[in-house]
Amino acid sequence: MGGKVFVSIGMSLDGYIAGPNARPGNPLGDGGMKIHRWVYGVEAWRERQNLGGGGTNVSGEIVEENFERAGAYVMGRRMFAEGEEGWPDPPPFRAPVFVLTHTPRDPWERQGGTTFHFVTEGPEAALERARAAAGGKDVQISGGAETVRQFLNAGLVDELEVHLAPLVLGSGVRLLDGVDPGVTLTPERTVGTGEVTHIRYRVATG
Amino acid sequence: MGGKVFVSIGMSLDGYIAGPNARPGNPLGDGGMKIHRWVYGVEAWRERQNLGGGGTNVSGEIVEENFERAGAYVMGRRMFAEGEEGWPDPPPFRAPVFVLTHTPRDPWERQGGTTFHFVTEGPEAALERARAAAGGKDVQISGGAETVRQFLNAGLVDELEVHLAPLVLGSGVRLLDGVDPGVTLTPERTVGTGEVTHIRYRVATG
Repeated sequence: MGGKVFVSIGMSLDGYIAGPNARPGNPLGDGGMKIHRWVYGVEAWRERQNLGGGGTNVSGEIVEENFERAGAYVMGRRMFAEGEEGWPDPPPFRAPVFVLTHTPRDPWERQGGTTFHFVTEGPEAALERARAAAGGKDVQISGGAETVRQFLNAGLVDELEVHLAPLVLGSGVRLLDGVDPGVTLTPERTVGTGEVTHIRYRVATG
Repeated sequence: MGGKVFVSIGMSLDGYIAGPNARPGNPLGDGGMKIHRWVYGVEAWRERQNLGGGGTNVSGEIVEENFERAGAYVMGRRMFAEGEEGWPDPPPFRAPVFVLTHTPRDPWERQGGTTFHFVTEGPEAALERARAAAGGKDVQISGGAETVRQFLNAGLVDELEVHLAPLVLGSGVRLLDGVDPGVTLTPERTVGTGEVTHIRYRVATG
């Protein structure tokens, strides 16, 4: 029962999801914003950032689809720490977010439906809670790379969508380093534009 | 005057074009054949390997297109050394191949229109000779990774086509390590199938 578990993440052609020196205050690392250049003009994304304007296109439809299907999120503690100061209020999630951490902390309720819950019992417990909170919708594993790797290697991911940015970043945090080569990926949908290539893979673990 | 300079190369989702331990006798490295799994059933490819059978599909059309547009090839010495024993006779190129090397050697003419020429004067000299030999058709930079990097960084490539294989290889030879992040890539054509994603980028250096 329940929805799927999916990853939807921007990556450079050379495999990076963030530049070097990612930390609070520099959440995408040096040069990392370039990976997401395609999204900054997308109306559906801007609306979630509480920014006006932007346009609609096929990439926008994919952004919207992802937001709509996600009934809850799971996130690593570093991604949370890096985003904590930067996300607007209301934050873009508008759903419960389960943060993997070693430090117990009370839930942090923000405007617009986003509540951050802090889970110290590990990935499977976080996923279980996210599934229960998602109300039959899907659960998105938000990142970062370490969390995605953990979930992929544990066989807990049904779909991996990569938004492949047409650039060489050269250094930073790689998405797939340490991912088990036994993970099986099958392309299910490919949408290419002049700015980005969206590839959705079905994931199986062998 | 003259055609374009293009790269057309298979790469795993984590950026590898060959597995570890690539050498003569193991030209694609350990596990590297998986990167090209999509091509082994393609009639147009099999025909060039002097194998019968295979089928036609959209990936086959792309293979055929690449073979047809290439009037000459440029290749690194390691790729030549690794392929030398493995290519069938007649070899799949059916056009002049200019091999970058430090060791002078007489041209090696094989059946079916493939002659290997050995160029000791560097990449630009090899490209100049390939252009002249291509008779107005395009020149393909065949590989390996070091040669592709050299040509990309020198601003000598017009198009990079990546055949992105849906797999995590985990180790081996990466295509884009050391490529100048100043290289600009613009997706021009994306063709996705359930086995591979073909993305053609226009390349600019600046």
